[in-house]
Formats: sequence, C-alpha cells, structure tokens
Amino acid sequence: MTAASYPFSARHIGPGLNDVRAMLATIGVPSVETLISQAVPKSIRLDRPLALPAPASEAEALAELSATMAKNTVLKSFIGAGYHGVHVPPVIQRNLFENPAWYTAYTPYQAEISQGRLEMLFNFQTLVTELTGLPVASASLLDEATAVAEAVGIALRHHRDKRTKVALAGTPHPQTLDVVRTRAEPLGIEVDGDTIDDNTAALLVSWPDTFGVYGDHKAAIEKARATGALVVFIADPLGLTLTDAPARLGADIAVGPMQRFGVPMGFGGPHAAYCAVSDRLTRLMPGRLVGQSTDSKGRAGYRLALQTREQHIRRDKATSNICTAQALLANMATAYAIWHGPAGLQAIAGRIHALANRLAAGLRASGVSVVGASRFDTVTVEEKGRAGAIAAAAEKTGRLLRVIDADHIGISFDETSTDADLDAIAALFGAKAGAAASSTMPGRPRGKEFLTQPVFHDNRSETEMMRFLRRLADKDLALDRAMIPLGSCTMKLNAAAEMMPVSWPDIANLHPFAPAGHSAGYRVMIDELEGWLAEITGFDAVTLQPNAGSQGEYAGLLAIRGYHRSRGEGHRTVCLIPSSAHGTNPASAAMAGMSVVVVRCTEDGNIDVDDLKAKAAEHAQNLAALMFTYPSTHGVFEEGARDLCALIHEHGGQVYFDGANLNALVGLARPGDIGADVCHMNLHKTFCIPHGGGGPGVGPIGVKAHLKPYLPGHVTEGSGHAVSAAPFGSASILPITWMYIRMMGASGLKQATETAIISANYVATRLEAHFPVLYKGRHGRVAHECILDTRVLKDRAGISVDDIAKRLIDYGFHAPTMSFPVAGTLMVEPTESEPKSELDRFCDAMIAISGEAAKVAKGEWPLADNPLVNAPHTAAEALAGQWTHPYSRLEAAYPAGDADTSAKYWPPVSRIDNVAGDRNLVCSCPPLSEYLGAAE
Amino acid sequence: MTAASYPFSARHIGPGLNDVRAMLATIGVPSVETLISQAVPKSIRLDRPLALPAPASEAEALAELSATMAKNTVLKSFIGAGYHGVHVPPVIQRNLFENPAWYTAYTPYQAEISQGRLEMLFNFQTLVTELTGLPVASASLLDEATAVAEAVGIALRHHRDKRTKVALAGTPHPQTLDVVRTRAEPLGIEVDGDTIDDNTAALLVSWPDTFGVYGDHKAAIEKARATGALVVFIADPLGLTLTDAPARLGADIAVGPMQRFGVPMGFGGPHAAYCAVSDRLTRLMPGRLVGQSTDSKGRAGYRLALQTREQHIRRDKATSNICTAQALLANMATAYAIWHGPAGLQAIAGRIHALANRLAAGLRASGVSVVGASRFDTVTVEEKGRAGAIAAAAEKTGRLLRVIDADHIGISFDETSTDADLDAIAALFGAKAGAAASSTMPGRPRGKEFLTQPVFHDNRSETEMMRFLRRLADKDLALDRAMIPLGSCTMKLNAAAEMMPVSWPDIANLHPFAPAGHSAGYRVMIDELEGWLAEITGFDAVTLQPNAGSQGEYAGLLAIRGYHRSRGEGHRTVCLIPSSAHGTNPASAAMAGMSVVVVRCTEDGNIDVDDLKAKAAEHAQNLAALMFTYPSTHGVFEEGARDLCALIHEHGGQVYFDGANLNALVGLARPGDIGADVCHMNLHKTFCIPHGGGGPGVGPIGVKAHLKPYLPGHVTEGSGHAVSAAPFGSASILPITWMYIRMMGASGLKQATETAIISANYVATRLEAHFPVLYKGRHGRVAHECILDTRVLKDRAGISVDDIAKRLIDYGFHAPTMSFPVAGTLMVEPTESEPKSELDRFCDAMIAISGEAAKVAKGEWPLADNPLVNAPHTAAEALAGQWTHPYSRLEAAYPAGDADTSAKYWPPVSRIDNVAGDRNLVCSCPPLSEYLGAAE
Repeated sequence: MTAASYPFSARHIGPGLNDVRAMLATIGVPSVETLISQAVPKSIRLDRPLALPAPASEAEALAELSATMAKNTVLKSFIGAGYHGVHVPPVIQRNLFENPAWYTAYTPYQAEISQGRLEMLFNFQTLVTELTGLPVASASLLDEATAVAEAVGIALRHHRDKRTKVALAGTPHPQTLDVVRTRAEPLGIEVDGDTIDDNTAALLVSWPDTFGVYGDHKAAIEKARATGALVVFIADPLGLTLTDAPARLGADIAVGPMQRFGVPMGFGGPHAAYCAVSDRLTRLMPGRLVGQSTDSKGRAGYRLALQTREQHIRRDKATSNICTAQALLANMATAYAIWHGPAGLQAIAGRIHALANRLAAGLRASGVSVVGASRFDTVTVEEKGRAGAIAAAAEKTGRLLRVIDADHIGISFDETSTDADLDAIAALFGAKAGAAASSTMPGRPRGKEFLTQPVFHDNRSETEMMRFLRRLADKDLALDRAMIPLGSCTMKLNAAAEMMPVSWPDIANLHPFAPAGHSAGYRVMIDELEGWLAEITGFDAVTLQPNAGSQGEYAGLLAIRGYHRSRGEGHRTVCLIPSSAHGTNPASAAMAGMSVVVVRCTEDGNIDVDDLKAKAAEHAQNLAALMFTYPSTHGVFEEGARDLCALIHEHGGQVYFDGANLNALVGLARPGDIGADVCHMNLHKTFCIPHGGGGPGVGPIGVKAHLKPYLPGHVTEGSGHAVSAAPFGSASILPITWMYIRMMGASGLKQATETAIISANYVATRLEAHFPVLYKGRHGRVAHECILDTRVLKDRAGISVDDIAKRLIDYGFHAPTMSFPVAGTLMVEPTESEPKSELDRFCDAMIAISGEAAKVAKGEWPLADNPLVNAPHTAAEALAGQWTHPYSRLEAAYPAGDADTSAKYWPPVSRIDNVAGDRNLVCSCPPLSEYLGAAE
Repeated sequence: MTAASYPFSARHIGPGLNDVRAMLATIGVPSVETLISQAVPKSIRLDRPLALPAPASEAEALAELSATMAKNTVLKSFIGAGYHGVHVPPVIQRNLFENPAWYTAYTPYQAEISQGRLEMLFNFQTLVTELTGLPVASASLLDEATAVAEAVGIALRHHRDKRTKVALAGTPHPQTLDVVRTRAEPLGIEVDGDTIDDNTAALLVSWPDTFGVYGDHKAAIEKARATGALVVFIADPLGLTLTDAPARLGADIAVGPMQRFGVPMGFGGPHAAYCAVSDRLTRLMPGRLVGQSTDSKGRAGYRLALQTREQHIRRDKATSNICTAQALLANMATAYAIWHGPAGLQAIAGRIHALANRLAAGLRASGVSVVGASRFDTVTVEEKGRAGAIAAAAEKTGRLLRVIDADHIGISFDETSTDADLDAIAALFGAKAGAAASSTMPGRPRGKEFLTQPVFHDNRSETEMMRFLRRLADKDLALDRAMIPLGSCTMKLNAAAEMMPVSWPDIANLHPFAPAGHSAGYRVMIDELEGWLAEITGFDAVTLQPNAGSQGEYAGLLAIRGYHRSRGEGHRTVCLIPSSAHGTNPASAAMAGMSVVVVRCTEDGNIDVDDLKAKAAEHAQNLAALMFTYPSTHGVFEEGARDLCALIHEHGGQVYFDGANLNALVGLARPGDIGADVCHMNLHKTFCIPHGGGGPGVGPIGVKAHLKPYLPGHVTEGSGHAVSAAPFGSASILPITWMYIRMMGASGLKQATETAIISANYVATRLEAHFPVLYKGRHGRVAHECILDTRVLKDRAGISVDDIAKRLIDYGFHAPTMSFPVAGTLMVEPTESEPKSELDRFCDAMIAISGEAAKVAKGEWPLADNPLVNAPHTAAEALAGQWTHPYSRLEAAYPAGDADTSAKYWPPVSRIDNVAGDRNLVCSCPPLSEYLGAAE
C-alpha cells in the first residue's frame, strides 16, 4: 500500500460522513442499514461481502493495470480488415477525447444545453453525406458489422418483411458476414451467394471486398435495382475521398466504419460506424439523427430529429433495437475531418494508395501473384502454402500481416505506414517497391468538390481548432459543471484515473485480430473483469462482447433461444414483457425471433403478478422467457422478485434480467441469486464508462452455466455467431470499469449503492411536499431514483413538465428524465457521486420552481408570460433593450441569486421547436455554394 | 515520412497563404520579402537557412522523442535532497496540468480576467502561511536554492547592505549552498560557519538538514535574534504538517520547495518554491504577491499586490531580479493540498515518517549506525567505506539511494514508498524493519488546527474537485479562448503535441541527481536542443540551466564577470544599459557586482549612439558590458546594431544581448553574428513553453567560445557555481521547445518569424489611423510588435489607457501590454499563431473603442458614465434592475454584437481598485474560525 490519504471510494462518493448523517436525519431513519432494509427486500439481500480484491489506490491500480497491459505486444499492423492504425491529432486528443466537457456529457435529448455536440454530430452527418453522396446520414452506429446488419434491417422493413434473401457482391470481411448471419438467422433470412431475384431484399456491395479489391458489380447492381432490392454499399470512407460517391453508383444505403478517421483501433473499439440512406428510407433508418430547427426566437438550433422513432422503438415488430450511438467517437472522427479538411484527407488517402500500388507493382514485377487490379489501400498476395511463413517473417520485423488462408496474405496500409514499411514488406517477398503509379481506384477521381462547407476549411491552424473545440464544449452542460439527475441513466463520476489508461499506447494501438498472444495483457484484464462482474451479479460466465446495452439484451435472448433449441424446444418463442419495460426489450425479443406477450402492471407500477401467472400458464408450452427490470423502471424494489423467477422456471421459461438499474443492487443483491438466468449490465451506467455525449456504451451479459455454450463467439477466436464486429467489443474502454472496481473494492461498491439509495430518498423526502413521489416500496422508500409527479403544476398552474425541464436550465441544471416511464413526470437519479451541496442546490431549484408556478396559479404572473414558459433565457433575451416581462432580468437568468454571476451557464438558444424541425428535416450542412447562393 | 496532410508549421502559424496575401495588400507591399527587407536591416540578415533537421510531423517528432526518452532509466528514488517521488492526483493532472485553460494563461496582471488563478495563488499563499506560521507569503519562487538566495537578499536589504555575513545552523543541501554562494560572492557576502555576530545578516536554519536531521538550533536562533540577524528557515513543507510552524521557533523568513506537493520531479523542475516572511519584511520580499481588494461595485476581488515593486525592480541597487514565478506549479501544489486537506496531508506525512522511523529503528537494532535522532522522512546511515557498494546493491533492486560520501548513505521516503521498499532497503544492511514507533519529529505535534479555511475541506470528492477546477478556469481568459496580444511577451500557440511529452513517466519521474547514466535520454535531448539553440542564435555554447529569463541574464553577466577576472581585469564592472531597458537588466547587473551606467535614448526610442560612444569612452578602463534588447523594447529593428557591438568590443567590453524579442529574429538574423558575446533566450516566449498563468519560464543563454568556461556548473556534475538548484534547470519542460523546433525545422521557424512581422505590421497599418503607431524603423515598418499611442483618446476624450484595456474585456480580449515601455500606450504583439480572423476581430474592437471615445469627446456620452470608464461590465451589472447608463445593456456587454451570445466571456468582477488593495494588504485567507466569528 502506498500513501493515499483517502480511499478512492471517498473520492468517488460525493457525500461525506457528516453529509450522510444529515441526509439520514432528513429522511428520518437512524442509520444507513435501517434505510437499506426498508428500501431493499430482505428476501434478496446478499448476506456476505463480494469476493473482490481489496481496494487499490489510484496510483496502485494504475500501476497494476500498466503492468498488465505491458504484456501486450503492440507491433505495427498491416492487418486491415476494417481496423487501421491512425495518428490521433494531439489537439483532438487533448481538447476533445481527454476533456470531461466532451466525454461526461449525456445524450443530447435536451437540445438547448447540447448545441455544441449536436453541431459536431451534424457535421458528422454532413461528412457522411458528402462522402457517400446520399442525402441523409445518421450519427452514428456501433461498428461496421452491426451497421451492415442494420442496413439489412432497413431493407427488410422497406419490403415489409416480405423478402427473405440477401445477396452479396464481393466478399465482406468475415466478422461482418458473421454478425449479419447471426442477426439474419432468427428472422429466417438467408445471406448468401450472388443470385438476385424477387425475394432479394438487399444486395451487399463490398467496396472494396475483404481482399481489398473493388470488383465490377455494375450488372448485379442493375439487377438489384430492377428487382427492387436495395443496394447497400459497405464502403471504406477514406477510400471514398479518392473516388465516386456510392450514390452515383446506385447505392440506396451506404455503411462503413469511421475508425480510421483518427480513432485508435483499441483492440476493436469503440469507434463509430456511419450509415447513409436515400430520402425515401429516412424514416426506416435506425439510430440517431440530428436535425435543424429554430428556437422560440427564430434562431437556428440543432436537435435530435424524429426522437419518437428512437425512444419508442416499434416494440414487437422491430428489426432494430439500436438505442445508443458512438457520439464521442463520431465527434472525434468529425474533428479529424475538420482538422485535415478535404485536401488533407485526400493527401492522406493518396499517400496510402500510392504505397499499396507501389507494393503491388513491385510484387508483380518480381513475379509474385497479386489478387485483383483495382484497390485503395490493400494488397492481397497469393503464395501457395506460404502465407503463415511470410507473416511469421514479417512479425520478426515488427509488422503484422493478415493471414487470410494458407495461400493468401493481406497487407493494408494506413496513415502510419512509411516507405520503410513498404520496402520491408516488399523484401519479405523478395521484391522491391515499384515506382509511384497512377491510381487503381475504381471510377472517376473525386476531385476537389466535396466538403466545401466552411467548417471543413476554417480550422486549419491549431489555435483555431483548439478554440473551436472549446467553443462547442462551452455551449454544453456536462458533469464537469453540474449534476445531471437523469433517472435510469446513472450519470456518476467518470474519474480521471479511470479515463487515463484509455490513452495508453498499449491499450489504444492494438489490432483486434493481432495474434492471440499479442493481446496477453488485454486478456488478463478481460478475464479479471469478467470474473469480477460475474461475482457482482452472481453468474457463472460473462461476455464483454456486446458494445451497447441493446446488444447485450439481444445476445442474452439469443443465448436463451440457443438453449431451448439445444433441448429440442425450439418452439419456445413466447417472451413475456411487463408493460412498464423500456422499448428495447420487445425490440430485442422480436429480433431474436420471439413473439412478445405483454404483462400488465398494477397501478403502483409493479408487475401484475396475477396477470403474469395467467400469461405464463397460458403460454407454458411455448414460454421462452420473461424479461424484467429490477429494481423496476418505476424506481422501486418490488417484493417477490424471487417468486417471479421461480414461476417462470416452473413453466419452462428462462428469466432475462434487465440490468439498467443495477446501480441500486451492486453489493446488496445479485440478479443470479434472485433467480435470473441471464442479465445485461450497462458499464456506461453502473460502472463509470462515461456517456460521451451519447455513446459509447458497453453491455456485457452474465449467464448461468447452462447458457454459457450459447454466448456469442467470434470468427477470429475459432467460433462465430458474434453480435459485434470485434471479439471483445469496445475493448479499449473496459479498463475504465476495471479501474473502478479495482479501486472501489467490495466495501466501496456496496457503500456506493447505499449512498445512491440514500441520496434518492433524500431528494424524495425534500421534494415530496412540492411534487408527489410516485411509486414507493412497501416501507415508503424508493430505490436509487424517484419519480416526481409534476402534473400537480400542470393542474394548478398550467405549467408543463417541459416548462420545468427548460426552467432548470436557467438554474444551471440538466433536466431529469422527462415523461419516462410515466408521462408528465420527472425521474431523478442523483447517484452516489453528487455531493450533498449539489443535491441541495437541485432540490432548492425544484422548490423554487414550484414557488414560481404558484405565482402563476395565483395570477401574479400570466400563464403566457412567466419565467417557466419562457425558459430557458439566453443572454440575448436577458439583455434585450426592451424588457416586457412581469419578472426581472435577474429573476430570468439568475433565479437562485448566484453570488458569482460569471459562473453561470448560458444556453446558446431558447426553447427549440421539435415539431417544426421534424416537419422540415435538415440533417446536413449545405455546401459552400449554397451559402454563396444565399448571399447573392 | 508518415502521412501528415499539412506540415506542423501550417498548424502553428495562424494565417494561411490567402490570409498573408490579403495582409500584405493591406500593408501595401507586394511580397513577404519586400516587407522583411523593409523591417529588418540588411546588415544583420542571415544569408542561409538555419542548419536544423528537416521538419518532422507531430507523430514523427513524438515517436523520435519517445525513443530518445526511453533511454532514461527511471528507478524508484530514495535520493531525496529536495526532490521526492509524488503521486500527481489524476483529477489535477487532467483538469489543471493538462488543461490549456490553465497552462496557456498569462501572468495575472489584468486582475479582472484572472480571478481564477489569482484565487488559486491566494490559496497557495494561505497554504504557506498556515504551514510556516508567518503572516505573509508570496506566490511563488523558482526553486529551493534560489529561494534561499532570495531570503539572504531580503536580509541584506533589511540591513541596508551593511552586513556581509550569513551563518548556517545545520548543513543545507549541497546544491542550495552552492547557489547561495554563487549569488553571495559578487556581492562580497560570506556564507559559512555558525559564528553569529553584529555583521551577520542572516542565520540559515536547515529544517531538517541535508542528512534529514532536525538539529537543536535554539541557542543559535536566540543569538541571531539578539544580534538582529534575520532567522531563515529552510523547511520541508510536508514535514511542517507534523510539527511546529517555524514562526513559533523564531523564524523571520521561511523558504522551501513545494515539489513534493504533487509536482513531478521532472529531472529537476519546474516546481514552485515558497517564501514567507514576517510583517515587517513584506515590502522587502521578492516575487509576486496576490492581494485582495474590491471592485468598483464593492465586490471582493483578487489582484497582484504591490505590482510596482515587481515591474520596476530597484534598478541599480537590486539584490533580486526575480520577475517571474512558478504559477502553474504553485497552483498544482495548492490543488494537491486542497484535494488532500490537512488530515490527508498529515496522513501522507505520517506514513512517510513511520517508514523512516521503522527503518532507523530496524537498522539500529541490527547495530547499523544511523545519524541523528530527530527526523521526518530521511535516514542517513554511516557505513565506513561501503556507501557506494550499498547504493549499487540497491540499484539492482530497482531503487536509488543517495551516496553522500564514501561513508554515508541517505534514504528519503516519500508518498510513493511502500512497505516492500522499507523491507528491501533494510535488507541491504542485513536488517529488518522495526515496528512502528512514536514520532521523532522535533517540537510539538501540529494537531488539527491548521488549514481550517473552507477551500481545504470542501473539495474532497472528485466531482467537487473537477468542478472547482473548471469554475476557476472559466473565470479566466486564456489562449484557448482568445488572442492575448501582449507586447514582448509572445503569447503564441502551445501546441498539444509539444505539451504531451511533459506528462510521460520517463520525463516526469526522474530524480535530477540520479546517476548520470540514468538520464541518458534526457542528455541526448538536451544536447540536441543546446545545439539547435546555438545554431539559431549563432553562439558556440548554450546552457539550459537558468530556470527563468532573469536567471539567464544573471548567468550571462556572471560569465562576463568571470571572463574579465580570468584576464586580470576584475576591475571591469561598469555595465551600460539604455534607458529603455526592462528593469531586470540593471537588477541583474547589480547582482553580478556591476555598477550601472544608463545610456540615453533618442526621441524615436533608439539608443542615443552619441551618448553610448561618450559613455563607453568615459568608462573604457572599467567597461564590463553593454546590455541591449534587440529588436528594441520599442518594437523596432534599430540600424547599426553591429556597430554598437563593435564599439563596445573596442573599449574592452562584452555585449549582452537581451533575447526578449528573439521572436522577431529566428531564422532572419542571429545575435551571435551581430556581435553579441552572450544572449539569453526566453523559451516561454519564443519557443512555445506556455506561460502557465505566470510561470514556469526557462531562460537559457548562449555564449561565444571565450565565455564558455564561465557558464554555471553544478555540484552533481563535478563543478559548481550554479544559478539554479538543478543541473539542467526546469528540465522536464525542455521537450516542449525540442518538439517545437523539431516540427518546425529551419523553414518553419523562418516562416513563423516572417509571419509575426507581417501580423504586427498588419495590425499597425489597420490601426494607425485611429492610434498613432509610435516608433517605426527607417522604412516605416515595425518589427514583431507595435506600440499604439492611446494618449490621443486621453487628450480628445479623457479616456485613459486603463479604460481601453478594461473595455477590451467586454469585447472578449486580454489587454495588450500597458504603459510599457511608454506610459499611456498599448504594446501589441500578435505573434504568428493568431489567425487573421482574430487579428481582425481585435482591430475591429480597437477601432470600435476609438469610436466610443469619439462619442465621449462629442459629449454624446458623459465622461463619468460611458462604456469605457465603466468597463468591464459583469453580468450582474448588465442585468441589473435599473439601467441608468446612456448606452444599452447590449452595448455594454456585446459591443461587437456577437451572434452567439452564449460564447461570451463574462468577467467575474468589475474594475479592481489596486491602490486600495495595496493600502490594506490582505494576502491569505482567514481561517474558518474567523468566518464563524463574522457570522456570529
């Protein structure tokens, strides 16, 4: 032990001992244990400490992880296959990737306090539309493989689930094909061959294919279009800077990975995938879409468009359960494109292309057989029976090549490749690099007419770029400035010690398909983390592959499906889901080939046990699973959770436990002990991975031993049926969770959960005189969050939950979760990390808002003109020449009477009109020519 | 070469090709070369490219430096001697040390836009007064050794230079004694022995001494006090958390290094030293002092107190030339104390103390001889003739001990030491660690009654600390938000790629006295950097030791002194200095034992050559040197610089070239070619080391071969006469400059200089119709900065230069340098890094201000109530209920009519009253008890 003056848990947990004492007094309980025993049913309590290593200090944990990760062997990768070495521009690394103003922000649902990252994501969409030529792009998908699966999903929806075949034009990367087949199989979709007929939903064009070759697919594309099949391009975005946009070649959809736009490989992720579609497919597109609208004063403002599409995923007919994005990584990729601009991107791509061509020419001149004639960055070489030997020789020079099979070897160049690499690789084949030759890219050269929007030209110097990134960050309200009291989303501290390893070279720069021995350090860390998570949740095995909570749900249901089928009970496809469930649950069930049967909830928000019993009995023959969230989405520990599980098991079903609210359980109870067979965890909620302004997420699942054989595998690990492109999903951010658990230890984790419950009950107690607290447990306690019924203000004063949410911005807060799970309410999850002073500041603000509404009710302020309906107030409004409101400027902007007026967060826009924005969808910047046109 | 889309120079330099073209058109010259030939005299132009390595990309330079630094051997250090291993708290590393909002800020002369770092420095002073018990502390000094020398300087001033002896109570660290003697010698001061008499100016009490022992110095202290000698404690600040404050033991002054408060050793620096004094010595104290005052609305606000003391160092009677501080490192140390709080600091200190005591007890139990009985962290062992062998054995276990001499070995524990270290070290002596024993600290235990101020208690959780650091950063205006157009201070880009290596473990964690072979990487980097700087400046040798510009000046003058003495011309002590010189010049000369003779300047700001000739002739027999700044402090390349140098040489003098304005020369001309014998460079001006909110600075000097023997050495390098505590000064930030030069190359550096000159002339051209540009060269051009005569507004409208400076804050700018070198003017240095758009925004603001003054002149706005005299406007004022001003709220706060009102910088205070603050000096926080008292 080195000298840490306080354990890390005292740094992670906001309230100190005296604060906790005061909070318990307010709640009216004598001790922590009294409150916990009132909130958490005794029947599920864990009666022993978790078996985890004793807590380490920040320095100790960093040293231990550093020693582990030093076991990795990080050679220079030429493996390619969707993952490429990059130079992260230092200005982006320091001012975006390592800046809490960017990485601690939440998903930009509250548009007014999210204009900075919305602007950056809007630029991402513009970047993608420019590269692909398609008019609409989302921001963003999880990885290339799931993006292709999502594109297939669009095609299926487009054909109203009437077509059942997907054809291939060129061979995709093996991991992509594997994930697409995983996703297709439960839906009865066949993905194979190049035959196109009236049953073909989509043609997948690999651009280039896994051998780096751009094939001639004109005929197939024409046939697809003739039969109505959608044409999906899987296109390398850097290659697209040198050639035609896919839209010109007949693409309806284009998808691909943005990793090589300045996001490290990170042993597989996270990085963002892009997805662009033609106009007619806009409303079928999964994931997030940033649009433009106007605020109440007519200023342009960004916001998430078509939000209902995302938040209420078509429940039982879904072919997508996508719920998160890769916002932080999409923003990094966008910043990379802004930093380099179109000419810079073309310079980088051109140099890579020249290296590949010079290798191919040199090899051919020496009589070595090279596959294909049209390429961007990759040379595939045929050397009968010698692929392994050549790769081994390359490894001795510090370079990793791709062994495609015994006879084929792949070499992909990237922006980190040098002439020395080229020479060394050529020498492996007894050849010399050829001279720089003309382009071997397909189609027409791209020319200079793309990315003409000013943002891609105005930030070429580092001073400008640094200020641009700060200006955007300053528009947003993130955890580095204030509490984000989001129910169910658990916005807790993302400690600097947890974040720092993500930037380490031996974590950032490993290719996911490097020889297994090269990831020895990663595998130790992953084994430890899996073990810890299994112990925390009470399961026998854990997989870290799912790179979002929704993917974890899906993988868990596939495991249940596999289990039933292995026992000859493939007919078990009925999935019971309570009506209170998050929309992802039924969507995931549908994707896993299950049919959803909804179970009613009682008025107090609990599962209606009688209805459950009836439905379980009714569907006993075909019962596959029950999915339930615990503590419930209503923020309460229901009694009898064990009985529910037993009931399902009696009827032959499996229990899927939604771990969204695991933050209320860790150290106090374990899903596995309660009776669950499978459970997903959101590492970005309970286990400190930051929300990144809307992703990355990580959604591992734990399973009981009988389900272990049905967990996802990976083609590179000798198995398959993966749900994510990389074997360990978003591996490079797993150290965040590793650090958190390693530093907290069993005692710290339990104390965190207890404090989260104390804080929620403290907020509930302080606010219940002003806002009724919906749903409490048997003893009148909530779990780790509470639902405040704001409809009282609507009834009394006509003040809506929206008004309250926007008025909180004037008080310097991000709004709690709005109208979920109950319309007209706010769900507050304070988490254990918020200090009591911040909880009090929030409660004071809510009470003051209640007082403001009272003035409206009393007629002191008119309903049409009061600080609530006018909220949020921008500086432009607060300083306007004419002040016509019945409240003062200071009441508008400084309702809490802040002593330090400079510390205020000023929203850049007033209230955004979401409806108008959806009606007039604008989701990428017009090119410069249109700006010029407008000015003329 | 890897693929960089643009060379780094295009990232560093703000204006692009089109911008430069437009700027040249405005200036009215056809080409860059035309302008440069007009601005820079042909006689001094360098006629060849600098011989530097070809420019590397960011990634290449980082890779090369990383490979070099991997040659360092970083073992665990137990060497101590003033340098200790630390755990930098990650929350501080990420949110302060690596945050451009903190490190790119300027010295807080403009109080209103500096409240964040002023508050932190004020807390530093509070921390020091609490630890030392003395009422007044500065913020901060350069290192322990120079701080002791400065303390001696206080004593000399206190005794009006009438006493000539300094006595020792306990042996200081060798490097401390060496620097104090270096500084004492030219002044004729003897530092030696323990005899105290009426000629003793100061008694230096080593607390503990270099052997780690707290001696019994009561008698010596009593005698010193009786004879009027000042008692100076050199005290380890962490040790002070466990024992009596020095003030209670009779200290008049306390100094020491704050490095172990969370600042990495960095092979010697930078870190901050502290200095605290009794009340009567306040105005004799060197360095910066933050005080409290009130703003125009009566709000409390911080500002640099007694500024005249610093800016106009007593010219020819100085015993200090201190001009900068170590603000960034002082802020880190303060943040460390805030993070740990008093109990945390005591826990850390207590654990270290226990390790030392357990080692001492264990060794004694095994019959090993341990020096002294009272210690904090250090055990000195006597082992006849075996010290080297034991250190070698320790090194084999990965640990570095201190070899004091053949018979003595020192072991210092720090917060990174572990029980395993203790056991391993004990084993080296064939002993086992003893049991935990009672304290062996001297005097009374400290108890809990210190650092009771709320700031040291309110930030215990990381969420609070992160927000605290952001809140302070947001109060300040730094380069990450806007141009800082400071004449002579060269606020250019501090690129992220330059900054990142400073955090690397093999740069941060090396002890400066590690065996020479362990710093092999550092020495390669230092050799390269010295060579490049020699080439850039035209000298034969460079030393990087001086850790501030003032220290460089001093070292340069000492070299001149040494040279004259070596030739039997020790009587050459007259130093000619033009009247336009910065105050540091004469102060440094006085400290080097020279007498200053002032040379007149002509009305146009040039050196009066006739007066120079006359004075040189008059003092020919005793002429030591001419010090001159080039281009001049007036921002002009004077003609005839070569002739000046020749003239001095003819009279037997040496030429000292002040490199403050080197940013106008690099690649265009070299001081060594012009005729200088010695020159200092400010790496924090010309070579991209950030200003850090007021330090660190680095001030290397270059010399011609004949002066090389007289450069400073170091006791650990087998020589001595050092000017800084560490052999290579602030070694850990030298990589910033290495990276800059490595990435720019000769062409980039030259282009930067040209662009700086273009930008200055562009600003001068745009503004001269509104503000006369004082001082131009023969062809009507300025160099890299220009002086705007704002007295026209005073004359016409009664608007002062202060009003303009404060009004610029409303426009979102830091003011230019005010009233230097000419009262009533603003000196603007745009640097090459500012984009043209920002230069235009600044020019637009200045022109608008001129227009505002015109309204005052015309009587549209009264002199007593206009936006200029009321500036800056806080949000509280702009939103006030009553608005009584003749201009609007929006004109007050958004004079440029910014479209995005959220992006505005709001000052936290209105204009600060400096005079009132100096009259009622408050420079540390009252303890909590006084807050309570006030509330009662």
